Amino acid sequence: MLYLYTPDQQECYTRLLREALPDETVACWPQEAGAEAVTHAAVWAPPDGFFARFPNLHTVFAMGAGVDKLLQRKDLAPHVRIVRLTDAGMAQQMTEYCLYGVLHYQRQMDRYAGQQRAGRWQPLETRLARDVRVGILGLGELGGRVATDLVGLGYHVAGWSRRPRSIDGIRCLHGEAGLRELLPETDVLFCVLPATPETQRLLNTDRLALLPDGAALINAGRGALIDEDALLARLDAGCLRFALLDVFAGEPLREDHPFWRHPRVIVTPHVAADTVPEDAVAQIAANLRAQAAGRPLNGLVERDRGY
Amino acid sequence: MLYLYTPDQQECYTRLLREALPDETVACWPQEAGAEAVTHAAVWAPPDGFFARFPNLHTVFAMGAGVDKLLQRKDLAPHVRIVRLTDAGMAQQMTEYCLYGVLHYQRQMDRYAGQQRAGRWQPLETRLARDVRVGILGLGELGGRVATDLVGLGYHVAGWSRRPRSIDGIRCLHGEAGLRELLPETDVLFCVLPATPETQRLLNTDRLALLPDGAALINAGRGALIDEDALLARLDAGCLRFALLDVFAGEPLREDHPFWRHPRVIVTPHVAADTVPEDAVAQIAANLRAQAAGRPLNGLVERDRGY
Repeated sequence: MLYLYTPDQQECYTRLLREALPDETVACWPQEAGAEAVTHAAVWAPPDGFFARFPNLHTVFAMGAGVDKLLQRKDLAPHVRIVRLTDAGMAQQMTEYCLYGVLHYQRQMDRYAGQQRAGRWQPLETRLARDVRVGILGLGELGGRVATDLVGLGYHVAGWSRRPRSIDGIRCLHGEAGLRELLPETDVLFCVLPATPETQRLLNTDRLALLPDGAALINAGRGALIDEDALLARLDAGCLRFALLDVFAGEPLREDHPFWRHPRVIVTPHVAADTVPEDAVAQIAANLRAQAAGRPLNGLVERDRGY
Repeated sequence: MLYLYTPDQQECYTRLLREALPDETVACWPQEAGAEAVTHAAVWAPPDGFFARFPNLHTVFAMGAGVDKLLQRKDLAPHVRIVRLTDAGMAQQMTEYCLYGVLHYQRQMDRYAGQQRAGRWQPLETRLARDVRVGILGLGELGGRVATDLVGLGYHVAGWSRRPRSIDGIRCLHGEAGLRELLPETDVLFCVLPATPETQRLLNTDRLALLPDGAALINAGRGALIDEDALLARLDAGCLRFALLDVFAGEPLREDHPFWRHPRVIVTPHVAADTVPEDAVAQIAANLRAQAAGRPLNGLVERDRGY
């Protein structure tokens, strides 16, 4: 039995899962399902102790791409397999979010907004897409797709990941040396890495200082990737032109956080890439069929790697 | 002889033209060229009386896509052929400008900016590209390319032109009936029509009222296309969510114009699509070769049509 916990969209997901999996029993919270019958769960942020109720649970589908919160839970036994969504409509949204920030930079919309406030008509120098260097941190399903989409739109794109990756048409760097090579050659840095012990505060004072003066930063990965105080210092010093931030060390962003009122920060409330229910259900259904047939799962989390 | 008048970029254009046309004599303002030898001119907003100095002038290359100002001049004899730029790097920039406005709408960046000012963390409903209906007024080299690019990015696109056009994969409407059909089905309206007597104030009170509540408007064509008072009234009434405006009835936009300070208006100073010198020169050189070989010119203006 598949047990569902997605408080805001329970009805929608239950209907879609039943349509996609006519032979599977689908129950959803707060139904009291026979706890022993539950082998699979599909969840978004279930309450503490949730998993402990199901002694025969062996597979959990996370209804998002990030699983850092799930991996920290005490109620999830080590043998339970965790499967994350790898695209589910999110890649296209990531491209859109990144592109908005890149266009904001390239087409100087931040500067034109300043001129508008001053009532000043002053065309600025034209910058073509091919003259904008976009650096992408994270080259998984999401980052890789963003990189390819941006190359298609004419941007100069390079990517970085912790371990070596190879993507057609993209210059791929990795490791500490690769990061030190990428940052000074990046006009717009787009972060879409997962939060793991290794990526914690990856962008600290030293590394942020490697970006060229006037660069812009977009974070759609996890807030933990960035030392927020270091970022504020770079923005205050005028070294970074702006930051478009969707994720934060603490969410919701607390009311008195300086990001809210910073003239160089654009805040969005963790909406860069929302799960598209139809696509998420298609991926879960495909994985259930793969599991039944003994084929490998798409999005299976390696717990020691952290994503 | 080709005579050049492009005050801000004279050196760059002279060099590029001489490289591209080694057999042609290229002179540039304020050189006193033998006025009788000048048969071609390449110009950006030359002073009144400029053309009258060249008795043998027969072809003028406009260094932009819009020729409304040139067509109003008294010093340009009726037999002189006018050739406008049809792309010259501008189509890609038009796509970028349109896309910025479309993403601003789709990803609700205007509303998130409002929430940021209020310190409010509130995810809004996700809207996918396929759920956004973009209407494009003007399906020439620029509008046609924008339409195709946006379809490639997943948007629902329809286009309109005064006369029937056909573009693969785009629903193309025309004439008054087509406009009345398109507007009520448009979430984001992108205008890239030329200014002609027929398009003067095309978007008046009546037609703006046909857009659905909450629609957005992007104008990168000419200011004369829109009745600016009618637009302000629709914005003030909250019927239009925002307008991204690059062109205005009077340019530069006068200091006390309400657009500068309107919370629903984004002003840019006629920069949506700048001529890329390398591409413009390539088009001029190709046209000179076509003319010498008796082949048709790309961008030849039909004076009675107005573009």
